[in-house]
Amino acid sequence: MAVYTEVSDDELTRFIASYGLGSLLSYKGIAEGVENTNYLVHATGGTFILTLYEKRVDPKDLPFFLGLMEHLQARGVSCPLPVRDANGNILNELGGRHAALVTFLEGVWPRKPTAEHCLELGRALARMHIAANGFALTRHNALGLSGWRPLYEKFADRCDEILPGLHKLIDKELSDLETQWPKALPEGVIHADLFPDNVFFISNNLSGLIDFYFACNDMLAYDIAVCINAWCFESDYAFNVTKGRALLKGYNAERPLTAAECDAMPILARGAAMRFLLTRSYDWLNTPKNALVARKDPFDYVRRLRFHQNATSISDYGGETPA
Amino acid sequence: MAVYTEVSDDELTRFIASYGLGSLLSYKGIAEGVENTNYLVHATGGTFILTLYEKRVDPKDLPFFLGLMEHLQARGVSCPLPVRDANGNILNELGGRHAALVTFLEGVWPRKPTAEHCLELGRALARMHIAANGFALTRHNALGLSGWRPLYEKFADRCDEILPGLHKLIDKELSDLETQWPKALPEGVIHADLFPDNVFFISNNLSGLIDFYFACNDMLAYDIAVCINAWCFESDYAFNVTKGRALLKGYNAERPLTAAECDAMPILARGAAMRFLLTRSYDWLNTPKNALVARKDPFDYVRRLRFHQNATSISDYGGETPA
Repeated sequence: MAVYTEVSDDELTRFIASYGLGSLLSYKGIAEGVENTNYLVHATGGTFILTLYEKRVDPKDLPFFLGLMEHLQARGVSCPLPVRDANGNILNELGGRHAALVTFLEGVWPRKPTAEHCLELGRALARMHIAANGFALTRHNALGLSGWRPLYEKFADRCDEILPGLHKLIDKELSDLETQWPKALPEGVIHADLFPDNVFFISNNLSGLIDFYFACNDMLAYDIAVCINAWCFESDYAFNVTKGRALLKGYNAERPLTAAECDAMPILARGAAMRFLLTRSYDWLNTPKNALVARKDPFDYVRRLRFHQNATSISDYGGETPA
Repeated sequence: MAVYTEVSDDELTRFIASYGLGSLLSYKGIAEGVENTNYLVHATGGTFILTLYEKRVDPKDLPFFLGLMEHLQARGVSCPLPVRDANGNILNELGGRHAALVTFLEGVWPRKPTAEHCLELGRALARMHIAANGFALTRHNALGLSGWRPLYEKFADRCDEILPGLHKLIDKELSDLETQWPKALPEGVIHADLFPDNVFFISNNLSGLIDFYFACNDMLAYDIAVCINAWCFESDYAFNVTKGRALLKGYNAERPLTAAECDAMPILARGAAMRFLLTRSYDWLNTPKNALVARKDPFDYVRRLRFHQNATSISDYGGETPA
């Protein structure tokens, strides 16, 4: 939630012109996105988001992220469309940063998601999974199973500063995940970070998906497990089964889950909770208390994890295993 | 440069509807304005800036600021226009804050102002002064001559932490200003903070003025003195007389300065430099080093002040006293 890189009016005027988008009318740094600098740009040629990629993004991944958005848009998924400049380039440089311009997507993310939102979300997620089929590039999930233990080892010795007993809890859970993690589920390109702030609605209709900067290749059902964690718990940590049912119903309407995917949902949900518990714990210990970026409390994911540890089948999430 | 107050989608949807502006399409917190929280709002009824007034703004002043923008717009000055809700109210409440919605003004502020920008600025400032004539409300300049010493006394004992010798410099200068400050110059409503980031251009044409939250009643020529300080010095602190000449030429073309105003320009410029030296010094000493808001260096105004102390007539700024 910050503008890390300032862009001058002259630089941006030239940049916009190189895309054939006419004159620059206005640009405002927007307080969104933890990782990158974003400007909302009005030009005579339309409204755009300009993103300057800051240090945490690996430039080698940018063709995957931008190419994916282009691939999805061409297949009817509503998401920001990267604009190509006069030379056909999707990725440029501005203010000493890698930079891209994408079309502005209207919509508002739901601060209090309802079951109706979850139904729409499920449908859109399944459609995205289908549409991503055939995308030529691949990207390993750096925050998947194989990445969890190395990340954990970076802060394991300080773990109990966050919560007494957290060290033991993560140790045990990581071992369980490593032995029980499913291996033969359908794979493809997943969003991997589809929290409410990445899903836009206009008057309760889903208007699009944004922020593909964690997208990667992994099990499709893992993406649902991320959404279960991100959308279906109340602020008192209670699981809302009506929302879970709606999410799964929406997804199944577009891409029916296999029996194996249904059976794996509790362990996938545990894995997704672990992924956010690990990154939030790491950030908690490594972000100064008075930094520009708000620290997100890892404790939310300890509570979610406990729910998933007690789940025995997809019916605990409101779903049904196909006969 | 921060979003201090978060607004929920439901609250804002209702808020927009109460103005008869249709459906909410999107809203983004923008990283502008040190004092207040600003959102750029797209609705089916248009594009707007939503401002939530934070603690540093006195609510009693809001009718003056908002009424002034409405008065100026009606008289052909391009500035944001406060929107009235279905009940005719210009000021409402949102997220526990006083809130107003104003039309979005396209334009980009010049990061490197040129003499051409200064010419346009001078014209627009004079037109604003003329258009403000007849505005029914008045507001005392809390940061005018009578406010400087009380502000100074809040931090005088810590002054030399900023710069050795600053205490002595301000003491002497304040005494000079108090004895030499002009008394009988033309008065009216002034902007009082017309820095480059408050003046928008599209392709070198001035598109409008923003941020009237320091506007007040004072000597009109003092507003020019603020602009001389804000627009006509280079980054090496050298005064650019070409820019000063352009600013004064533009102003005179719309509202010719009187001989008394011209004679007073050096002392008015010293006063304007003092006003920003004092507020920046105060903020410097009272803003934590790692706060959300960037601290502006008071030293810039020590250098400007020294230039003005050596100026003897308006010709030092590129102007001429009328015969």
